[in-house]
Amino acid sequence: MAEATTATDVPAIELEGLAVQDVAQRVTPWDVEGPEVNGVRLAIDYDKLIVQFGTRRIDEAMLERFTKVTGHAPHLFLRRGIFFSHRELDVILDRHEQGKPFYLYTGRGPSRGHMHIGHMLPFVFCKWLQDVFDVPLVVQLTDDEKFLYKSDLKAEQTYQYAVDTVREIAAIGFKPEKTFIFSNMGFMGGAFYRNVLKISRCITYNMARSSFGYTETDHIGKIHFPSIQAAPAFCSTFPTIFGNHTDIPCLIPCGIDQDPYFRLTRDVAKPLKFKKPSLIHGQFLPALQGVTTKMSSSIDSSAIFMDDSPNVIKNKINKHAFSGGPTSLRELEEFGSNPDVDISYQYLTYFVDDDQEIADLAVSYRRGEITSGNMKKRCIEVLQKFVGDFQEREKAITQADVEDFMNPDYPRPFAALAKK
Amino acid sequence: MAEATTATDVPAIELEGLAVQDVAQRVTPWDVEGPEVNGVRLAIDYDKLIVQFGTRRIDEAMLERFTKVTGHAPHLFLRRGIFFSHRELDVILDRHEQGKPFYLYTGRGPSRGHMHIGHMLPFVFCKWLQDVFDVPLVVQLTDDEKFLYKSDLKAEQTYQYAVDTVREIAAIGFKPEKTFIFSNMGFMGGAFYRNVLKISRCITYNMARSSFGYTETDHIGKIHFPSIQAAPAFCSTFPTIFGNHTDIPCLIPCGIDQDPYFRLTRDVAKPLKFKKPSLIHGQFLPALQGVTTKMSSSIDSSAIFMDDSPNVIKNKINKHAFSGGPTSLRELEEFGSNPDVDISYQYLTYFVDDDQEIADLAVSYRRGEITSGNMKKRCIEVLQKFVGDFQEREKAITQADVEDFMNPDYPRPFAALAKK
Repeated sequence: MAEATTATDVPAIELEGLAVQDVAQRVTPWDVEGPEVNGVRLAIDYDKLIVQFGTRRIDEAMLERFTKVTGHAPHLFLRRGIFFSHRELDVILDRHEQGKPFYLYTGRGPSRGHMHIGHMLPFVFCKWLQDVFDVPLVVQLTDDEKFLYKSDLKAEQTYQYAVDTVREIAAIGFKPEKTFIFSNMGFMGGAFYRNVLKISRCITYNMARSSFGYTETDHIGKIHFPSIQAAPAFCSTFPTIFGNHTDIPCLIPCGIDQDPYFRLTRDVAKPLKFKKPSLIHGQFLPALQGVTTKMSSSIDSSAIFMDDSPNVIKNKINKHAFSGGPTSLRELEEFGSNPDVDISYQYLTYFVDDDQEIADLAVSYRRGEITSGNMKKRCIEVLQKFVGDFQEREKAITQADVEDFMNPDYPRPFAALAKK
Repeated sequence: MAEATTATDVPAIELEGLAVQDVAQRVTPWDVEGPEVNGVRLAIDYDKLIVQFGTRRIDEAMLERFTKVTGHAPHLFLRRGIFFSHRELDVILDRHEQGKPFYLYTGRGPSRGHMHIGHMLPFVFCKWLQDVFDVPLVVQLTDDEKFLYKSDLKAEQTYQYAVDTVREIAAIGFKPEKTFIFSNMGFMGGAFYRNVLKISRCITYNMARSSFGYTETDHIGKIHFPSIQAAPAFCSTFPTIFGNHTDIPCLIPCGIDQDPYFRLTRDVAKPLKFKKPSLIHGQFLPALQGVTTKMSSSIDSSAIFMDDSPNVIKNKINKHAFSGGPTSLRELEEFGSNPDVDISYQYLTYFVDDDQEIADLAVSYRRGEITSGNMKKRCIEVLQKFVGDFQEREKAITQADVEDFMNPDYPRPFAALAKK
């Protein structure tokens, strides 16, 4: 700004040379292009990448150390600078020298058809490294990334590309007892993860933010989570239950606070050609302290827990349950009590099936015919039974029962149900 | 703006009443609070939520239809408006009437300790719905969400909360043959997904964006993907290989374009107390058309594929491989050829181990002693052998081999390797 000039200061200049704009090279996981200078595309400048990315060149000293530590002459890819750069390769050489273990990790984004010789480079190099160091290798097939970035691909298709490419990778000469090749879709929860991916591809950052109000310092796990909660709303998430059915909708009973998740879920059903889930929304059970907020696990005195003893239940209700009664007997006779804000009465409406009793309780309470002490007493009785019965049943649940419930392969004959 | 006033127009006003600001109610998946009016917290206004969320009230007509279709009187939660709102419940009733199947889905965010009676509502209601409709139920335990939102929790801890709560849910009275209860961490790839979660919690949207340049219309799958690519860099992702080891680092040979992913991976290693992976970066194999870009699967003529026949390889090199030779014999004798841009020569540097041959070829080529036709011929020979040998090995790979490679439980005795 200090050297600002006015129009009159500027001499007439030759503009011709400026018409062509030099274009910097572009190297990202999705694009590789050398720089363009004066309209001519040049080779990729790898030295520049080392500076730009802040990595280290694999120099002569490193190669000498490599030979010394491993007893092997460097692979031609190292000798010729094809593998040219590193981060903390010295740490690995140190460990190897000290007899400490490490492993190799490489990967591939599987695509239609066969690999080409360019794809061979990391694998040929890994095989050599595995032979030299005698270490395990894990190979990640990023069928999920392919699917996320190519909107024309289907999830099953990219998964198939991954399976198809295993044969090719095996042909490099890896030994199965040292090499684990996995597809992200296959290794991470099969049908479940596949549906998570399909859903996540339908929800933009903008959509999720307007539903949940994320900020830019929120972590990417949060931002992605709506895909996880949406997946079970579609029957194809559960192939062992629903087989090949894709047209079976679900009904979701949930607290009304979960609606934002399932609104998004319903929105993505259409583009995915899945059945929209239906919803039933529930109100919250109020906290012991009153109807203005819900019972909360993190505030012990707000809640009756399922492992509370009869005595604890009694004390909590007596001590904490907000009462709709007046403060004196005279007021009680004159004005009656208010069941609408009385927590004991409110709980009874959740746990007593008999409509007549509920109606009678409200009327008598308003008339001042029963005290809030009586109301608490009835509530204690009902909750002690509800919680006590639950505790009895819980005692009877075995570890085997738990495993059956959590076993996706446990026989759940949905086909039989569907036929009726 | 049209009614703008100056200071002198404004009469002295009584400000007292303005000191208390009314606060709207807040109902999100993470917070529930009734509205505050004149400093007093009121009960949650559920009617307002119906309008705000755009759902429908479960009215008398709906309850009558429910009774007619199911032959059951509505549950007390329905009669008393505890489950008060819905989305397309009529669609489910239609299906049931027509004998078409559906299923139920509910869930719970597991936490330390026992459930409270408020947690029972959706389960008690679901059990009743399951009994009335005789349909399957899936129960999602969002141990992952809990972990993502509570920075003080450990992944193994939240997973344990999920397992612990299954017994309680079972005690509601669900039958295993109709009910699948799953923890997201357990059902979706166990240790793999757990590490994905840990990583995703360390990467903010801002960090990911500055690495990959996302925009706000990018979908949440993309934004989350760096967590997936990072996970295999940590040995605890593979318990069947590394057992309880958590301190075994890995070395990642990869194309330099993948560095942004693994820079993030290295950044998250420290807060997670995982070993930082080391990297070796490779250059790209150039396209047949020249050194300015890399071989690409999507451009057939840019690449030699691993299933190309000897004849196809020959034709591709002859037709497409960019040549560093001059255009006439006279020029050749006078100026020689340039191996630096000659693709056939470049490929030979990748696939011929003999350093002497590579050096001799370059010198002779520059001197004009060998033609670009000769260079192509040698390249064709080398690539035909490389690709041919690969095809031989590939033929020998069986389906069982593929399954062994992809089987996480296939014996890979890392313990033995680690001991040496």
